[in-house]
Amino acid sequence: MPRPVITLTTDFGTQDHFVGVMKGVMLGICPQAIFVDITHEIPPFEIGDGSFTVAELCPYFPRRTVHLVVVDPGVGTSRRAILVEAAGQYFVGPDNGVFSMLLQQQKHKVRALTVARYFRPVVSQTFQGRDVFAPVAAHLAAGVAPAKLGKLVKDAMCSTQLSPQQTARRQWVGTVVKADRFGNLITNFHEREFSALLAKGFHLTIGFETFDELAGSYAAAPVGQPLLIVGSSGYLEVCANQASAAKVLGCGAGAPVELTIAKG
Amino acid sequence: MPRPVITLTTDFGTQDHFVGVMKGVMLGICPQAIFVDITHEIPPFEIGDGSFTVAELCPYFPRRTVHLVVVDPGVGTSRRAILVEAAGQYFVGPDNGVFSMLLQQQKHKVRALTVARYFRPVVSQTFQGRDVFAPVAAHLAAGVAPAKLGKLVKDAMCSTQLSPQQTARRQWVGTVVKADRFGNLITNFHEREFSALLAKGFHLTIGFETFDELAGSYAAAPVGQPLLIVGSSGYLEVCANQASAAKVLGCGAGAPVELTIAKG
Amino acid sequence: MPRPVITLTTDFGTQDHFVGVMKGVMLGICPQAIFVDITHEIPPFEIGDGSFTVAELCPYFPRRTVHLVVVDPGVGTSRRAILVEAAGQYFVGPDNGVFSMLLQQQKHKVRALTVARYFRPVVSQTFQGRDVFAPVAAHLAAGVAPAKLGKLVKDAMCSTQLSPQQTARRQWVGTVVKADRFGNLITNFHEREFSALLAKGFHLTIGFETFDELAGSYAAAPVGQPLLIVGSSGYLEVCANQASAAKVLGCGAGAPVELTIAKG
Repeated sequence: MPRPVITLTTDFGTQDHFVGVMKGVMLGICPQAIFVDITHEIPPFEIGDGSFTVAELCPYFPRRTVHLVVVDPGVGTSRRAILVEAAGQYFVGPDNGVFSMLLQQQKHKVRALTVARYFRPVVSQTFQGRDVFAPVAAHLAAGVAPAKLGKLVKDAMCSTQLSPQQTARRQWVGTVVKADRFGNLITNFHEREFSALLAKGFHLTIGFETFDELAGSYAAAPVGQPLLIVGSSGYLEVCANQASAAKVLGCGAGAPVELTIAKG
Repeated sequence: MPRPVITLTTDFGTQDHFVGVMKGVMLGICPQAIFVDITHEIPPFEIGDGSFTVAELCPYFPRRTVHLVVVDPGVGTSRRAILVEAAGQYFVGPDNGVFSMLLQQQKHKVRALTVARYFRPVVSQTFQGRDVFAPVAAHLAAGVAPAKLGKLVKDAMCSTQLSPQQTARRQWVGTVVKADRFGNLITNFHEREFSALLAKGFHLTIGFETFDELAGSYAAAPVGQPLLIVGSSGYLEVCANQASAAKVLGCGAGAPVELTIAKG
Repeated sequence: MPRPVITLTTDFGTQDHFVGVMKGVMLGICPQAIFVDITHEIPPFEIGDGSFTVAELCPYFPRRTVHLVVVDPGVGTSRRAILVEAAGQYFVGPDNGVFSMLLQQQKHKVRALTVARYFRPVVSQTFQGRDVFAPVAAHLAAGVAPAKLGKLVKDAMCSTQLSPQQTARRQWVGTVVKADRFGNLITNFHEREFSALLAKGFHLTIGFETFDELAGSYAAAPVGQPLLIVGSSGYLEVCANQASAAKVLGCGAGAPVELTIAKG
């Protein structure tokens, strides 16, 4: 039987012992686990970036993978801990909107994690990643059934700002959900929903830049010039050949994106 | 039998091949090892930060875990290589004070690592992490008995600056051992030793800020205001709600901390 | 049988989901793989740094290790994907010169990776790390024979700039291939080729600094003063005791290095 996979997505950075300590806790519960660090550099308080990252994992990990997500500015307040079951995988983290894009994209069940037997014996106010989320993730990886961890809930937090809103007959307003390390600006317009519309002709505006065609690859434009592509995630994405589109356009996460479809 | 766990704590950063090469060496000796990176960003020459980080690992890792610690500004000089056995776990690294807090907190045995058979055949002057510490750690993980690696010693370096010093009947002077990535200032006052005293009433001063009560969580103060809590490690810690206490107070690792207990 | 080892060397950074997604893809193909991250901070477009890093791995990893190398500014163009077999190990990556130092140092075979059955079903223009290199690496780790992946080729890109060029009877011009995180300047003069020559007496010039002897360790000079050593990789290296030689000399990767051997 393949060993269980646990991924980690946090805003902890890598300079402290926080991530290592969570892994120590999980190895105590599930010694056969394989860890995959997704990133520990989710910008704190940027739920959009975390939400995009988490939703990206689904298509690429084996069934039964446990995704541990600790982006949790509200630690120590009354926000709930939840488990999302989607795409045959498990997602464990705080109920603060970080699962919004996942919940919008995938059929899912959500449980409130309330059964303290699966937490560490003492739960601190300031490090629930170690005391709640990590142990629950490890118990799941070790084979504990989701139903033992808490009851189903219907009201998980889901930010509508993270999907494009239609504002007129042929107009949508979306957002840049993330600027990646190369400065590519990833929007929340997915080819799944928009490619038929785009084929009719379009204008897409970010900052002072307007695009009216899709390019095939980064190298399709002169060095430094921005262009619009379907990124590796399937989302419309502005990039610049060997340059940072974020710098060229002067935009980052949260910037509005306006799409107008031509009269067909 | 669970596979052996080897953690890594270094000042190597993550841009070079140094950490990867140590893992390659260890996999050659102990192919079944599981690696857990604690951090590779210990500030070089900050023994306090390294010492705090290492001591934090004990409560969270399984018995027989091997902790490899390479924070070693004195590489190539005559400082010894040592093995600390404490809390049922193994700690391998240089004898330069980086194990001070561990030695102060835990019953321990220390051995000087002198048996060259467990090193790489050629030991370079500049990369003993690869040539001495990593192979010894891997041999331990693979089951070699500590006694084969070197004789017990009694004089491991242990910095008294890393524990609070009593300076008057109701007064102690300690230090900030670490500013973490969120800017929280972690002191070396542990609740284990000081909570009964604190309950009598106290003043604790760091920089120009004085605290006279403990808060329950980060969210207990207005945004940006510093407050004193018992951190997730059990140490008194100054933090600021959604802000960096290090910036608010203008302090960092090494800053003095003065505690005065009220007349009971 | 030991589990297969896959190392990862990329320019992806660690803030995005790219590396994690490649590991997810590989675990789907080879669930028993062990991952070792070498670095994800190869400076994009610095083929010299990547080439040095990759060549450094050979002596330290077990036979049959698969090294996945994605430093690929030309993604989406017509550059080939290749497999290098050298030193009993496998190297998978783009044919853009990133294997230059490896090819110069080791006996090798090179194959063009053309058999799409070992790719992901859809190959994107912008993330071939995920869609081509990672799946091929995982299939190799899982035991697929190299010959199934593509035909041998003889014309892999190999930059001669990455080895010293003889310019006169007793004179060579080389280069700084990398400045590491400590600011050490690693040249491409290897002791294997040059130690007999150096023993006759020499002058080596980088920037405005000339060295005429080899020091034994970092600590051999006063703090801050640059000195020339044989580094842990066997290359001549300029370092400075407790300081950055890169800053002291004002040089970095790409700087020329001139070696003159004394009249014997």
